[in-house]
Amino acid sequence: MSQINIKQLDAQSPEFDQQLKELLHTDLVVDHQVTTIVDDIIHRIKSEGDQALIALTGKLDRWTPDSVEALEITKQSQQEALARISTAEREALEKAAERVKSYHQHQLQDSWQYTEADGTVLGQKVTPLDRVGVYVPGGKASYPSSVLMNVMPAKVAGVEEVIMVVPTPDGDINDLVLAAAAISGVDRVFAIGGAQAVAALAYGTDLVPKVDKIVGPGNVFVASAKRAVFGQVAIDMIAGPSEILVICDGQTDPDWIAMDLFSQAEHDEMAQAILVSPDQAFLDAVKASIEKLLPTLSREKIVKISMESRGALIKCSDLDQAMDIANVIAAEHLELSVENPEQWLPKIRHAGAIFMGRYAAEALGDYCAGPNHVLPTSGTARFSSPLGVYDFQKRSSIIHCSADGASELGKVASVLARGEDLEAHARSAEYRIKK
Amino acid sequence: MSQINIKQLDAQSPEFDQQLKELLHTDLVVDHQVTTIVDDIIHRIKSEGDQALIALTGKLDRWTPDSVEALEITKQSQQEALARISTAEREALEKAAERVKSYHQHQLQDSWQYTEADGTVLGQKVTPLDRVGVYVPGGKASYPSSVLMNVMPAKVAGVEEVIMVVPTPDGDINDLVLAAAAISGVDRVFAIGGAQAVAALAYGTDLVPKVDKIVGPGNVFVASAKRAVFGQVAIDMIAGPSEILVICDGQTDPDWIAMDLFSQAEHDEMAQAILVSPDQAFLDAVKASIEKLLPTLSREKIVKISMESRGALIKCSDLDQAMDIANVIAAEHLELSVENPEQWLPKIRHAGAIFMGRYAAEALGDYCAGPNHVLPTSGTARFSSPLGVYDFQKRSSIIHCSADGASELGKVASVLARGEDLEAHARSAEYRIKK
Repeated sequence: MSQINIKQLDAQSPEFDQQLKELLHTDLVVDHQVTTIVDDIIHRIKSEGDQALIALTGKLDRWTPDSVEALEITKQSQQEALARISTAEREALEKAAERVKSYHQHQLQDSWQYTEADGTVLGQKVTPLDRVGVYVPGGKASYPSSVLMNVMPAKVAGVEEVIMVVPTPDGDINDLVLAAAAISGVDRVFAIGGAQAVAALAYGTDLVPKVDKIVGPGNVFVASAKRAVFGQVAIDMIAGPSEILVICDGQTDPDWIAMDLFSQAEHDEMAQAILVSPDQAFLDAVKASIEKLLPTLSREKIVKISMESRGALIKCSDLDQAMDIANVIAAEHLELSVENPEQWLPKIRHAGAIFMGRYAAEALGDYCAGPNHVLPTSGTARFSSPLGVYDFQKRSSIIHCSADGASELGKVASVLARGEDLEAHARSAEYRIKK
Repeated sequence: MSQINIKQLDAQSPEFDQQLKELLHTDLVVDHQVTTIVDDIIHRIKSEGDQALIALTGKLDRWTPDSVEALEITKQSQQEALARISTAEREALEKAAERVKSYHQHQLQDSWQYTEADGTVLGQKVTPLDRVGVYVPGGKASYPSSVLMNVMPAKVAGVEEVIMVVPTPDGDINDLVLAAAAISGVDRVFAIGGAQAVAALAYGTDLVPKVDKIVGPGNVFVASAKRAVFGQVAIDMIAGPSEILVICDGQTDPDWIAMDLFSQAEHDEMAQAILVSPDQAFLDAVKASIEKLLPTLSREKIVKISMESRGALIKCSDLDQAMDIANVIAAEHLELSVENPEQWLPKIRHAGAIFMGRYAAEALGDYCAGPNHVLPTSGTARFSSPLGVYDFQKRSSIIHCSADGASELGKVASVLARGEDLEAHARSAEYRIKK
C-alpha cells in the first residue's frame, strides 16, 4: 500500500473548465542553449561531412570508428543480432511486424482520374517518397517497437530506400533494435545519433545519403535539429509527453484500469494518465487499486511523480459528459472501457487512437494490434493523425485539357486573371480559346 | 522587340548538374528583425486581445474601427460586394467554385474498418477539423482565386466553421475577394491582417475564435507568424516563389510557350520559368517569341528580371532526359507540352501539378480547371502534396479487441514490453491473457 496524492475533479463543478485547462497545460519552452549547440552541429556536418560525424560520435557517444565505413551497421550485423535474440522475442517481433504491415496496407492510396464530357481528364497521381530516414534513440529509450512503427508504413508506401540511424553510446548495440530493423526491411543502418545524425540525413554526407523525410522520436537535441532542418526535408510531428484518457462505466476490473493508467505514466514524469467515470465508487476503487499496485511496479518512482503531478480522477455526470471531456482533451490514447463502445464512437471527434471495450488495453496498440503507435500528443489530435502510409506518399494533380475543354476554361480563366491584374495569365489562357 | 539575356544550358554538358543546382538555389534567410517584431505582436494579441487588434490595425493598416465589432465584415457586406462585381466576374467565380468543389470531392476520405477471424475490429475513423482560418492578403496580392482554393477544400472536408481574415489597408475592401468569400461559403470574415491576424486565429480573442489550422499565403510577417504558432495550431506549407517547368517536343506554338513561361514570371522577380526541349530550333523560336512578346506585357519589368535572373532554356538530348530533369527540379507546375503526354506520365515522380498536352496551360489550373493552385514550391514536391481535402481531415485509429483477440495480442505485447523494460505495459497486456 502506498498513499497517492492524485487530483480528484468533479466535472459538474463550476471551476471544472479552468481546472481541466490547468491540468492539460504544458509549457513548451525553447531552450536557446540547445538551439545554439544544434545549429553549430548542423553547420559542422554541412561543412565537414563524414569527418564531423566521426568527431561528434567520438565526443558525444564516446566511441570512435576506425573508418568512415565503420559508421555503417551491415546487413550481416543485423542478421547476427536477429540470431542472438530469443526465439520468443523473434516470434513476437515477426508477429507484430506482420500485423502492423497488414493494417497499414489498408491505408494505401491509389492514383485516380476522371474524364469530363468534353474529354478533359482530371486526376491525382500518388507516388511514394524516394528515400526516408528513421531516427531511433539509443540507450534506455531504444525501442524495437518504434523501429517497426516508423519503418513499416514507409515500406508499405513503397519507399525505395529506408535509412535508419541509431546511436550506439559507448559502442553498445541493442540487439532487439537491430533485429527489428532486419525484420522490418530497413535498407541501411548507421550507428550515429543526435543532431549530427539528423543533419547528415537532411543534407547528406559522402557516407549517409540525403533523405526526403525524417521520422522518429528523439531527445531535445534531436527534436531541435528536426525543427531546424524542416523545410529542407519533411519531418514528422515533434512528440510531447505520452497521454492516456480512460473513460469507464464502472464495470471494468479496477486493477486493469489502474495498470492501464500506469502503462502511460511509466513512460516519464511528464506523462499524463486521466480516468473519467460517472461512478464515484468505481473511482474510489481504482484509487485503491493504484495504491495497492504502485509499490509492485519496477518504475514506481516515475509513475508516482507522473500520477501525482499530471494525473487525475474525474467524476462526470454521465457518459455523454465524458465524451465531451474527451473532445476537449483530444487525447493521444483514448480507452472507451464501457459496455457497447460503438454506441459512443460517433460522439468522439478528436483522439489519436481509440481503444474500444474492456479488452483493448492501450499496451496492445503500442506493440502489435496493427495501428501505429506514433500518435498526436498534447491535444494535437484536433488537427493531426497517427503516423501512416499517407505520410510517405505524396500527390501530384493531373490536368489534361481537351481542345474544347481548354477553350471553355480559357474564357473563365481570362476573366478571373484580368480581375487579378495578371495579364500574362489571361493571355496564356486566351491563346487556348477557339476563334 | 526586346533583347533578353536568358540562360541557355545544355543538359549534355559535363557542367550541367552543377549549373542546374545553381539555377535552382534559393537562399531562405530568416530575418531576425522580422522575428522580433512578430514575436512582439503575438505577445500583444495574447495579452491584450481585441484592443491590440484595434491598435495594430490602426498602426499597420492605417484605419481604426469604431468598435471591436467593426473589425468583422458582415454577411450583408459580402453580399453587397457580390452585387457590385460584374456579371461576367460573378459567373466566372461561380463556375470556378463549382469546378474546384467537384474535383475536391474526389479527395474525400472515408472511415473504414475490418473484422479479424477472432472478432477483433481494426479501423480508421476520419473526421474534419472543427474550425479553420484562411489568411487572404490585402492590397496588390489580394486574389479571389486564392479564397476559392483555400476555402473550398475545407468546406468539402466538412469543416464546420471557416474563418477568413483579410487586411483592408486604408479601409479599402476588395469586392472580388469578398464576393469569392460569399460564393465559397466562408462563415465569418474579419478585416484584419499581418502577424496580428495570425495570432488572433491561433490563440483566439473575444471577437476572433481560435482555430485548429491556419492556411493561406501572406508576406514575410505572415509567414513568420505562421511558423511561430506552428504546434499551437496546424499550418499549411510556407510557399516559396512560384515556378513553372515546361517540357516541349518542339511542336507547340512558341508564342504559347513564351506566354506560359511569362504567366509564372509575372508573379514576382524571384519566380522561376524554365523550358526544356530536345529541339534547338524550337528553343531559338521560343526565345524570339519571348523577345517579341515581352514589350507587350503590362508587367514587362518584373517578367524581364525574373526571366533573366532565374529563367532558363535547356537543350536536352531527348524527352527521356527531360523527364529526368523534371524529377530533379520537382517543379510546382510542370507542363508536358508534348504529343501523347500519357506516355511520359509514369516517368514523372515529383511535381506539384502536371499539365498534360498543348492545351493545358498552367493558367487554367490557377483559376478553374478544378485541382488546387496551392502547390509545393522549391522542390518540396519531393515530399509534399497540393493543398487538398486531406489537409482538413484527420484520422483516429480504432482498436476493438475481442476477448480472444486481446488474449493472443497480450502474449505478444508482454514479450515485447518486457524486452523494452516497460513492466506496466506488460502487466496491462497480461491481465487480458486468458488463464
